[in-house]
Amino acid sequence: MKLLLKTDRYLIGRWKDALYQRVPGLDIVTFPFVGDPSEIEVVVAWEPPQGMLASMTNLKLVISTGAGVDHILKDPTYPAHVPLVRMVDPGLTQGMVEYVVMSALLASRKMHRVFANHGRKIWEPESAPLAQDWTVGIMGLGVLGRACAGALRGMGYNVIGWSRTEKDFEGVQTFHGLDGLEKFLPRTQILVCLLPLTSETEGSLGRGTFNRLPSGAAIINAGRGGHMIEADLLTALEKGKVEVAVLDVFNEEPLPVDNPLWDHPRVFITPHLASMTTPETAVIAVADAVEELRKGLPYSNLVDPSRGY
Amino acid sequence: MKLLLKTDRYLIGRWKDALYQRVPGLDIVTFPFVGDPSEIEVVVAWEPPQGMLASMTNLKLVISTGAGVDHILKDPTYPAHVPLVRMVDPGLTQGMVEYVVMSALLASRKMHRVFANHGRKIWEPESAPLAQDWTVGIMGLGVLGRACAGALRGMGYNVIGWSRTEKDFEGVQTFHGLDGLEKFLPRTQILVCLLPLTSETEGSLGRGTFNRLPSGAAIINAGRGGHMIEADLLTALEKGKVEVAVLDVFNEEPLPVDNPLWDHPRVFITPHLASMTTPETAVIAVADAVEELRKGLPYSNLVDPSRGY
Repeated sequence: MKLLLKTDRYLIGRWKDALYQRVPGLDIVTFPFVGDPSEIEVVVAWEPPQGMLASMTNLKLVISTGAGVDHILKDPTYPAHVPLVRMVDPGLTQGMVEYVVMSALLASRKMHRVFANHGRKIWEPESAPLAQDWTVGIMGLGVLGRACAGALRGMGYNVIGWSRTEKDFEGVQTFHGLDGLEKFLPRTQILVCLLPLTSETEGSLGRGTFNRLPSGAAIINAGRGGHMIEADLLTALEKGKVEVAVLDVFNEEPLPVDNPLWDHPRVFITPHLASMTTPETAVIAVADAVEELRKGLPYSNLVDPSRGY
Repeated sequence: MKLLLKTDRYLIGRWKDALYQRVPGLDIVTFPFVGDPSEIEVVVAWEPPQGMLASMTNLKLVISTGAGVDHILKDPTYPAHVPLVRMVDPGLTQGMVEYVVMSALLASRKMHRVFANHGRKIWEPESAPLAQDWTVGIMGLGVLGRACAGALRGMGYNVIGWSRTEKDFEGVQTFHGLDGLEKFLPRTQILVCLLPLTSETEGSLGRGTFNRLPSGAAIINAGRGGHMIEADLLTALEKGKVEVAVLDVFNEEPLPVDNPLWDHPRVFITPHLASMTTPETAVIAVADAVEELRKGLPYSNLVDPSRGY
């Protein structure tokens, strides 16, 4: 079975080793050396170039190396009959949980002020409300959103959640749909975006959302850059509607040096590192999907292209 | 019953309100207006001036507003027959848990490098080991140390603990005494100091300790400044023995502007804010101790002055 691997260059060796160890009977080719496209049956990829998948006439399965699949579905020539599987990996989930808990603590403990004081050698102890006095609102209640909700509750935060369709889970009050958003946002002091990027969610973090939050809210974007309207965020920061933002994803990555977000004193910028796929653990999900293909079983983490996630 | 209150000036009003509401029959005087020292029966204080307590000939109980009591016992004239009670308060514990978890995440996710890159507008995603690949070693297994151990385990870290005398609790491998330290330190990648400050623990964070840690360790000091030999820390940072330090307490506070720690790129400085006493919750511990005094009951959080904690 011929598998094409397209991943960050520095991870290719580890991915190949992990795949050969874990998935028997593979013939692995690594992008850009595709060979005859009609021989490729499985693709494991991050950001496949437009048109490539459509050229593979015997393609049976596409597996995303990341949790999101927007980087694949943005290709309008994506062959809709080919099953697309998203990455679900305990390492990916754990990385996101760590990032979101850390970011919530940076916000609730007002560390942007503490670090700014450090830079000016100013000693100014300021008490900050404890976790139990903050409500964190999570947008997106998939695998990552639910794991983050549990960890944030464990730290003592009040946690509420919002998703497009109704989702319930214990201990977290959930809201859904546009009506639910109207109730969810005014209660959210720390907004965590973990939505998938689809045509519906694009630009969700914009003026309309920020204006509905209580004043002095914090924004944590660990979803996709496309969720954020950066000009609206800068305005909300200036107005004090948003006190602080922790951003891992951007409309353009790497974030261009002339982007004003770099210089804003109340913005933490991290270079898309919240949750990075580790080949050694992620390979299990690939092995499972390949086995599901071989045995004709239903896929555990199948994407619905019409929803985009 | 006459009670003298000495606390940060900006908290006096809140402390008085909380005490009047919660503890019946009090006549509260606030430092520096002591009046006749022989009338004072209870002192609730942070850093009482040397000699003041000895001058109170009818003193029956001293209550520290903080978890540590070094600020009281450093007075050599402390009247040893007067019971001293330390502050145990859910708010104080929660604050410390938040600070220690945040600091561990800053260290394990290598945020000192990420923030330095931010300052230079450098986009350099770097993967960092997940919590499960780090061992956090906690020195000091009192109320705060045990709470932090639980929260760090909840985040996925391996947690080990060290204390002067033997202490066991579930899920955490513990070591004690000087022999135990020899086994504890080489396994500790992130060292959290939550020791009480006593003549035995003073200077614990020095060359001898740093040299026994694995290379590239992180130091989180949320104990007392007196635990840290700052020159040794700077040397360990230069040698790479210590990769990063998160410091909340210092030998001199406020940290003087000419202290070289301010400028070190791998040191996070916070101005003694890890865990701040909230009068509204801390007053419960005061009420309990006053009731124990009135009823002649044993004190729940009595300090042993010979141990210093």
